[in-house]
Amino acid sequence: MNYIRESFARQKAMALIGASLSVVSAGKSEVSLPYRDELTQQKGFVHGGIIGMIADTACGYAAYSLMPASASLVTVEYKINILAPARGALVARGEVVKAGRTLTVARAEVYAQDGKHIATMQQTLMMLPDTADTPDP
Amino acid sequence: MNYIRESFARQKAMALIGASLSVVSAGKSEVSLPYRDELTQQKGFVHGGIIGMIADTACGYAAYSLMPASASLVTVEYKINILAPARGALVARGEVVKAGRTLTVARAEVYAQDGKHIATMQQTLMMLPDTADTPDP
Amino acid sequence: MNYIRESFARQKAMALIGASLSVVSAGKSEVSLPYRDELTQQKGFVHGGIIGMIADTACGYAAYSLMPASASLVTVEYKINILAPARGALVARGEVVKAGRTLTVARAEVYAQDGKHIATMQQTLMMLPDTADTPDP
Amino acid sequence: MNYIRESFARQKAMALIGASLSVVSAGKSEVSLPYRDELTQQKGFVHGGIIGMIADTACGYAAYSLMPASASLVTVEYKINILAPARGALVARGEVVKAGRTLTVARAEVYAQDGKHIATMQQTLMMLPDTADTPDP
Repeated sequence: MNYIRESFARQKAMALIGASLSVVSAGKSEVSLPYRDELTQQKGFVHGGIIGMIADTACGYAAYSLMPASASLVTVEYKINILAPARGALVARGEVVKAGRTLTVARAEVYAQDGKHIATMQQTLMMLPDTADTPDP
Repeated sequence: MNYIRESFARQKAMALIGASLSVVSAGKSEVSLPYRDELTQQKGFVHGGIIGMIADTACGYAAYSLMPASASLVTVEYKINILAPARGALVARGEVVKAGRTLTVARAEVYAQDGKHIATMQQTLMMLPDTADTPDP
Repeated sequence: MNYIRESFARQKAMALIGASLSVVSAGKSEVSLPYRDELTQQKGFVHGGIIGMIADTACGYAAYSLMPASASLVTVEYKINILAPARGALVARGEVVKAGRTLTVARAEVYAQDGKHIATMQQTLMMLPDTADTPDP
Repeated sequence: MNYIRESFARQKAMALIGASLSVVSAGKSEVSLPYRDELTQQKGFVHGGIIGMIADTACGYAAYSLMPASASLVTVEYKINILAPARGALVARGEVVKAGRTLTVARAEVYAQDGKHIATMQQTLMMLPDTADTPDP
């Protein structure tokens, strides 16, 4: 799964928010996010868009883990329900629901450290075969 | 609309990504995001989760602009389609579709500076009447 | 769970498509749909909107099973991914993800008789306390 | 647009609920649904799944109208917000947001006869080039 970890490491947006790829296996991935004041919305909770970012990324690498390293993938769409406010470290667990030839459907659950269920996401991704997963030269 | 601008100013996550509330009027809001390398995913495009963050926030303040300043609001859920990759400044325009007593439905369109349509979001929000929009003491 | 079965029995749209409430327990429900030519789209597969109907209903009764019989509920929104075409009997299994005071989030999986995963839905519902679940007089 | 009308005419599910394709032009379509008791849920309103069916179909034919007649298309996913209960005739207006090479994003608005906004849908579809839009022999 080296190509997955290398791809994640190229995501500067993950570095910006302080997220790391804590686990990756076939069809699954886990993104961890320590709490920081910089991640909050107006009431001091972690911003819903930040929760979306880690869930989006967890779905993406769950999907990518079932694709060849020679492929790249794009997020087609995602839908997230925020179930509870969060003011602490979070983990997003992504999992593939259906891996098709072109499209993959994945899901992510976001939890707080005390096990509280914070959010649930359903996502569609598209595989681009024989496409570099690195910036164009 | 001072309570809107003050609420946005409390969103540390918006400062982290460099977004600003460029416009707000009754039922509408606009969030602007200059391009920075720190916002990118593995291929050098703006991260889909970052696009989601500004669309989420644009929907939220469009909705909040039709609520009393004594209320707070929470994002129930959102769904976003990414229509094209983006490697430049973005603007997210939020607009209320239906303002109900408890729930509001809003939409946001994200555009690049050349007018390219980058993403479209549909969102549900819930009003919490007589609730401070500031962190609990 | 008599109030659930009575509510389902009032759904004339379920009778129209031939669906039945095969199972209901706390936080779960199952809607069964025998195959009929009348349910198909242009290629002879079960219409995606029909698949949505049974998933929507399965989510709804899973949610309603955790509410008092004196309440009614409305569907706020749902999102469904169609994973595979279907040309046979279907079952939609609904399950509550989070039951809140006002809002409930539920999910449904739709399967074919051979166990094939046909669709997955994520749904938001709102409880209306002290509201009749019957037509207004 | 004959291939569109012929495709719609093969949708037995549309005949079952009594819906018709009232308008179709490049990138747009309109599905009309007269009110019938058989379409209702437990409170006598049009079933949310039925509303989803006509919105789904309106999106689909809006998308199909921009594709060659030699192609077929499948619904990848859709998300719908129900904005108000409905107890009368409905019309679903579908429109293409972005027509891509493989994927198309469309939207539909559902209105009651008095102009009330009943629902809004965002949908993703996939084109299958050189694929018959008729049942397999």
